[in-house]
Amino acid sequence: MPVVLYAGSPDKRSIYARELPRAAAEVGIEAAIYMDIHDIAPDRVDYLIFDGNGPVQDFTPFSRLKAILNLWAGVEAAIRCAPPNDLPIVRMVEESLSEGMRDYVVGHVLRHHLDMDRFLGPTCRDLKWENEFPPLARDRTVGILGLGVLGADCAQHLARHGFRVLGWSRTPKKIECVSCFSGSDELNELIGQSEILVLLLPHTKDTFRILNAKRIAMLPHGTCIVNAGRGALIDHDALLSALDQSRIRHATMDVFDVEPLPLDHPYWRHSRVTVTPHIASVTRPATASKAIMRQITRGEAGRAFENTVERMHGY
Amino acid sequence: MPVVLYAGSPDKRSIYARELPRAAAEVGIEAAIYMDIHDIAPDRVDYLIFDGNGPVQDFTPFSRLKAILNLWAGVEAAIRCAPPNDLPIVRMVEESLSEGMRDYVVGHVLRHHLDMDRFLGPTCRDLKWENEFPPLARDRTVGILGLGVLGADCAQHLARHGFRVLGWSRTPKKIECVSCFSGSDELNELIGQSEILVLLLPHTKDTFRILNAKRIAMLPHGTCIVNAGRGALIDHDALLSALDQSRIRHATMDVFDVEPLPLDHPYWRHSRVTVTPHIASVTRPATASKAIMRQITRGEAGRAFENTVERMHGY
Repeated sequence: MPVVLYAGSPDKRSIYARELPRAAAEVGIEAAIYMDIHDIAPDRVDYLIFDGNGPVQDFTPFSRLKAILNLWAGVEAAIRCAPPNDLPIVRMVEESLSEGMRDYVVGHVLRHHLDMDRFLGPTCRDLKWENEFPPLARDRTVGILGLGVLGADCAQHLARHGFRVLGWSRTPKKIECVSCFSGSDELNELIGQSEILVLLLPHTKDTFRILNAKRIAMLPHGTCIVNAGRGALIDHDALLSALDQSRIRHATMDVFDVEPLPLDHPYWRHSRVTVTPHIASVTRPATASKAIMRQITRGEAGRAFENTVERMHGY
Repeated sequence: MPVVLYAGSPDKRSIYARELPRAAAEVGIEAAIYMDIHDIAPDRVDYLIFDGNGPVQDFTPFSRLKAILNLWAGVEAAIRCAPPNDLPIVRMVEESLSEGMRDYVVGHVLRHHLDMDRFLGPTCRDLKWENEFPPLARDRTVGILGLGVLGADCAQHLARHGFRVLGWSRTPKKIECVSCFSGSDELNELIGQSEILVLLLPHTKDTFRILNAKRIAMLPHGTCIVNAGRGALIDHDALLSALDQSRIRHATMDVFDVEPLPLDHPYWRHSRVTVTPHIASVTRPATASKAIMRQITRGEAGRAFENTVERMHGY
């Protein structure tokens, strides 16, 4: 019977204590599930459930691990703990994670597309009652950096809604109704056309500050940015200066270098910035537990895990 | 050669003076197009382009009209002018009208679904940085009253996004992935389930105040309302009282009994109300002119017009 240890955030322990056994029963696997690192010797653990905010910051004592099962799509925390090279790190991929991201990204892209904010809040009474002919979705170019499971889903739904969608990823991809770009020259080409730019890349050494001062200057005047990837993707000083000059119309950001975003950070007070508290897509314990148990089932049957991290690329 | 008279809003005359001839050339029809009622005798006009805000409020002198070509999807103004019963009134139906409505409806439904407003404006700095598990689109029931061209398109796109969509129309309809209701009992059934309620009905004697005090009381506690149909659909006193009691969480409205909405109307000051100035879907002169010329081509070829008003139903 595989030994599973939950080493995620303490504040979610009680939810997972309920959901993990329930998911094991549903998936039909028997497992010894431990919720506390003090209840089981590390060298007896087969599967470690991990999110970077729990009690484990060093994988060395866990000498017989078959996999690290990450509770999020982002795996930087697991990689920082320097696990042995041959130990699979499994990213969380599950429907509800994509669906939550889709809600957030499509919602905020439409918010910026319609310039909704000017109708909200107390100043809106000044609005003029006259017909305008604002651009339709088909007249609007949305760029998406990152075409993984989440990015590809968002790209496709934005295209289905009617937007002109350009997508960029490290390796070439094909997505229906989306113009796909790859490589660094093509990145700049996409940047130069994106009236709304969505960031959904992982944080790796190659993506660190990928939206730097030079690329921010390449964006069309008045671009809106939606960052639901990682705070590390953006040069924040350069972004603030572009926002101050109104070259960037608005930045809606869900992720930051430091989270929670420190209360003295200029983003909190900037009229062109919307801060959301890392809610774009939340791992939901019920569905995440099922995804975990399905991976353990694969592992126990000697099959390869799905959605494992490619170490050389860092995601 | 058919004689066409533009009798829409004076402030759009110059745009249509450019777009109508251009559209005629594109569609390949020759027409004598007049932009001013003083330039042509009414009894020589074959086609009257009308939007209710122009110089014509009585169709009687236009004795040889083949059709009234309405610039909007809503036709109350044309019907108020009491045209002869056998004179076709043609509603404006064209792609960009649907697309604009889709942007507005999907955008504001997502805004309410994500409860975006709490992250906007100066109070947002109080927000807590903790994981919540808000409902996904699939957990959210959106009701749509009105399944005409605009309503059906919105219903379908919301369903594709992932929402659980219920639709209601006077006559039974079938739309993929949408649960369709019709008739008055079934209306109440839909009302009772709608966490976000979208109104896209025309204004007729049957739809006047269709969302009355009784039905507002049937809505689930905390429902959000999006009215992009007509102001006449809602009992506004009943809505205000439900908003005051927070039984309705928010109302986003684009249409009102009187437009522009008078500056002393309580909606302007209500924290649970968003007013937009009848922008949900705007007739765009370029594409509307083409739709008009296509209809004239049909008429001249002796074919029936498309999207004509059924007088007994008032739309």
